Amino acid sequence: MFSLCMQPSASLKVQREETIGSRGYNYSTRVARNPNLKKLQTNYLFPEILERELKHVEKYPNAKVISLGIGDTTQPLPQPVALSMSNYARALSTPQGYTGYGLEQGNKELRRAIAETIYKDLLVEETEIFVSDGAQCDLSRVQLLLGSNVSIAVQDPSFPGYIDSSVIMGQSGDLKNDSGRYGNIKYMKCNLENDFFPDLSKTERTDVIFFCSPNNPTGHAASRQQLQQLVEFAQVNGSIIVYDAAYSAYISDSSPKSIYEIPGSRKVAIEISSFSKTAGFTGVRLGWTVVPKELFYLNGFPVIHDFNRIICTSFNGASNIAQAGGLACLSPEGFKEVMFKVDYYKENARILVETFTSLGFRVYGGSNAPYVWVHFPGSKSWNVFNWILDKTHIITVPGIGFGPAGEGYIRVSAFGRRENILEASKRLITLLCHTN
Amino acid sequence: MFSLCMQPSASLKVQREETIGSRGYNYSTRVARNPNLKKLQTNYLFPEILERELKHVEKYPNAKVISLGIGDTTQPLPQPVALSMSNYARALSTPQGYTGYGLEQGNKELRRAIAETIYKDLLVEETEIFVSDGAQCDLSRVQLLLGSNVSIAVQDPSFPGYIDSSVIMGQSGDLKNDSGRYGNIKYMKCNLENDFFPDLSKTERTDVIFFCSPNNPTGHAASRQQLQQLVEFAQVNGSIIVYDAAYSAYISDSSPKSIYEIPGSRKVAIEISSFSKTAGFTGVRLGWTVVPKELFYLNGFPVIHDFNRIICTSFNGASNIAQAGGLACLSPEGFKEVMFKVDYYKENARILVETFTSLGFRVYGGSNAPYVWVHFPGSKSWNVFNWILDKTHIITVPGIGFGPAGEGYIRVSAFGRRENILEASKRLITLLCHTN
Repeated sequence: MFSLCMQPSASLKVQREETIGSRGYNYSTRVARNPNLKKLQTNYLFPEILERELKHVEKYPNAKVISLGIGDTTQPLPQPVALSMSNYARALSTPQGYTGYGLEQGNKELRRAIAETIYKDLLVEETEIFVSDGAQCDLSRVQLLLGSNVSIAVQDPSFPGYIDSSVIMGQSGDLKNDSGRYGNIKYMKCNLENDFFPDLSKTERTDVIFFCSPNNPTGHAASRQQLQQLVEFAQVNGSIIVYDAAYSAYISDSSPKSIYEIPGSRKVAIEISSFSKTAGFTGVRLGWTVVPKELFYLNGFPVIHDFNRIICTSFNGASNIAQAGGLACLSPEGFKEVMFKVDYYKENARILVETFTSLGFRVYGGSNAPYVWVHFPGSKSWNVFNWILDKTHIITVPGIGFGPAGEGYIRVSAFGRRENILEASKRLITLLCHTN
Repeated sequence: MFSLCMQPSASLKVQREETIGSRGYNYSTRVARNPNLKKLQTNYLFPEILERELKHVEKYPNAKVISLGIGDTTQPLPQPVALSMSNYARALSTPQGYTGYGLEQGNKELRRAIAETIYKDLLVEETEIFVSDGAQCDLSRVQLLLGSNVSIAVQDPSFPGYIDSSVIMGQSGDLKNDSGRYGNIKYMKCNLENDFFPDLSKTERTDVIFFCSPNNPTGHAASRQQLQQLVEFAQVNGSIIVYDAAYSAYISDSSPKSIYEIPGSRKVAIEISSFSKTAGFTGVRLGWTVVPKELFYLNGFPVIHDFNRIICTSFNGASNIAQAGGLACLSPEGFKEVMFKVDYYKENARILVETFTSLGFRVYGGSNAPYVWVHFPGSKSWNVFNWILDKTHIITVPGIGFGPAGEGYIRVSAFGRRENILEASKRLITLLCHTN
C-alpha cells in the first residue's frame, strides 16, 4: 500500500547527524531532538533508488528508463468520477454549491456508500467508517490512537510505513545494524517456506499486529483459513489487528477482501483502506478506516470513541471535492469503470508474471495483487536491482527494502502504462535470457 | 484558527469511562487504552454547544437560529479558483491531465507561489514550505515532530487544539478539575490587563511556545514590539515558537502578518498557516507550514530534516485538486478576489463590533480578526451564552471554552452571510438593549 517518500528535494537530503557539526551553525535552540526520530534509519529505500536512477541516466543519457518501481497509478480517472469532482468544484463558487467544514468523519452519503458497496453483507455500519485523506495518513493516526506503550508485530517483508510510524510513535527500540531490525518490534517472517503467511505457532503475543493482504510487496493474499487463524490468534492473545486492505480489489480468487469476512474479527480488527490503488486516487487523496463498535480496550472502553477523538483533533475531514469523487466511484456506473482500471493493472501483472516465468524465474504475487515478487535465490536484491537496471534500463525495487526477509527478491509494480509494460517485457526477454 | 469537532454522530457520543461497565461487553482485547487519551477532557466545547442548540430548537421550533458560533466560512469560492480546480479535476480523466502521487511536500509551483506571494521580502525559501491539508492537521504533525518529552506553553485563552494535541502526544500531566488546566502545560494569560499579550517577565521557560496571532478567540493581533519581545524571549530561552498565522490576512493595521517579519525569528520559529479562512478552503482543505533552515535542535540537527521525514511518513501530500486551487488563489487575479472575501468578513466583524459597542459592551478583536471578543465582566460565559440564545436565538461561543482566562467573555464569529449578520445585529439591538 501507499507511496513512500521518494522525492526529497535536493536541498533536503538527510545528513547524517555526526556531520552536522562541521557545517557550522551559530545558534541552536535548547530543545532536544525527538529521540524517536533519532532512531529512524537515515537511508530510506526510495530516495536511494532515485539516486541510482539519476546516476544511471547520467551514464546512459539516451536510455529510455522504464519504472516498475514505485506503485504509482498511471491510468486516467474514470470519466464520471472526474466529472463529478469537476462539477462539485465549479459549484463551490455558487451560494447553493458552496460548503465549508464537513464532518471530520466524512460525509454521511459517502460513509453509507462505502458500507453498502464495499462491506455489503458484512455488517459494517456507516458510523464505523471514518473517511480519510488516504491510508498512509490513517496509519499514522491509528498509531496516535495506540500510543507509545503498545507492543507491535509486522509482516517481514512489509511496507516500511508500519515500522517507520511505529518508531516515530516511540513503540520501538533502537535499530540493530547487524539485523536491520528495530528492538521491541516482532518481525513475522513471510516467505516461501510458510506460503508467505507467518507461522503463528512461533509468533510471540503483541498488543498490535499490522497485517497487509494482499501484501505489499509479496503480492500474497491470505486465504480464508489463514485469516481465520490470524483472527483466532488475536482473540486468544487479546491483540488488535490493524488490517491493511488497500489492494483488496485485486483479489481474483476466493481470498477474503476484508478482514470482516472472518467471524469474530469485529472484536479484534481495525481495517484501513483506500481509493488510491483502485480508482487511481493516489494524487486526489481519499481513503477510510473502519473501527467496529465491538472493539474494546482491556478496561472495556470502546476503541471507536478514542479514534473519533483522534480524527476530530488531528484531522479535519478529507477534501470535499475528493469525497464527491469517492461517491461517484461507488455509484453503479462509477464502480464498474473503477473495476475496469483494476482489470487493466491486473492484465499488466499477468504480462509481468508471464515474462519472468518465461525467463525461468520463480514468481509470486501478481494474480491477487498489482505487485510481482520475483525470486533470485542466493542473490542480494540490490545486486539484482543493479543488474536489471544495467541490462534493461528498468527500475524495480530490491526486496531487502521491505525487510530482511525480502532479501533475494525484487518487487515489480504493475501500475505502469500498457505500452511500457510491453516494452519492459520485451527488453527483459531479449536482454536477460542470455544471461540467466 | 481551525474548526473543532462539533458534530459527533449521535451514536458516537463520548461516554464517561466509568459508565462503560454497565453497558456490558462480552469480550475485550488485552490492549491497554492509551493513557494520553484517557487524560483528555470528556466534554468538549462544540458538541456541548450543539446539544444546547438542539434543545433550544426543541423549545422554540419556529425560531430561526443564527449561528455566530463556529468559525466556518460561508462565502462561495472566487470563480477563477473554483474554475481552476474544476478544470484540473476534469483533466484527471485524460492521459495528459492525469497525475498520481505528487511530492509529499507539495507541488513546486505552489510552494514557490506561497514563498513569493505570502512571504515576499521575508527570505522564506520554497523548500522551507510544506504544503498540507490544513493547519489543524499540520499542528498534529508538528506535535509528532516534537514528541512527548518537550515542555509547552499556550496562550490562555486559545484554540483548544493546541492543548488537546499536546495531551494526545503525552506532553501534559493530568487535568486538574478545580482549575480546568492540565499539569505540565504553562498557560500564558492574555487578558485586558496585559493588552491580550502574555507578561513574559512572569512566564517560565518551556521548550515550545504555541502562539496564535491574530488570536483565536480574542481577535488580538500582536504588535511588532510584542512579537519582538516574544522572539527575544524564545532566543534567550532556546525555545521554539509554533506560530499560527491562519488569520493573518485579517490584519488591518501595521501588526506583522508573519513571525518572519521579526529579525531573528528564523532561528526560533515554525509558522503554520492555511487557505481556510482567507480563500474559504475550510472544506477543500489546504494549508502549509514553514520550517526555516536556520532552526536547529540543541544537538545542532536541523529541525527541517525531521519535519520532512514526518511529512513523508505520516502524510502523502495535499489533494492535487486542492493544490491547483491554492495556486489559483495566489495568481494576481485570484489573490485580489480572495482579499475581497476577507474584506466581506471584515465588514461583518465591523458590524458586530458596532452592534455590541452600541449596546454598551466592551468589545475586543474584530478589527484585525474575524472574531469579536465581547466582555461581560463578572458573568459566567455559559450564562451569557444561554442568555443571548434565549433572548435572540443567536449561537455564540462561551469564552471559558478557550481556557480559564476566557471566563466572562463570549466569542462572536464574523464568518456568516451578511444578511444573517444584519439580522443578528437587529435582534441583538432590539432584544438586549432593554435588558442590559
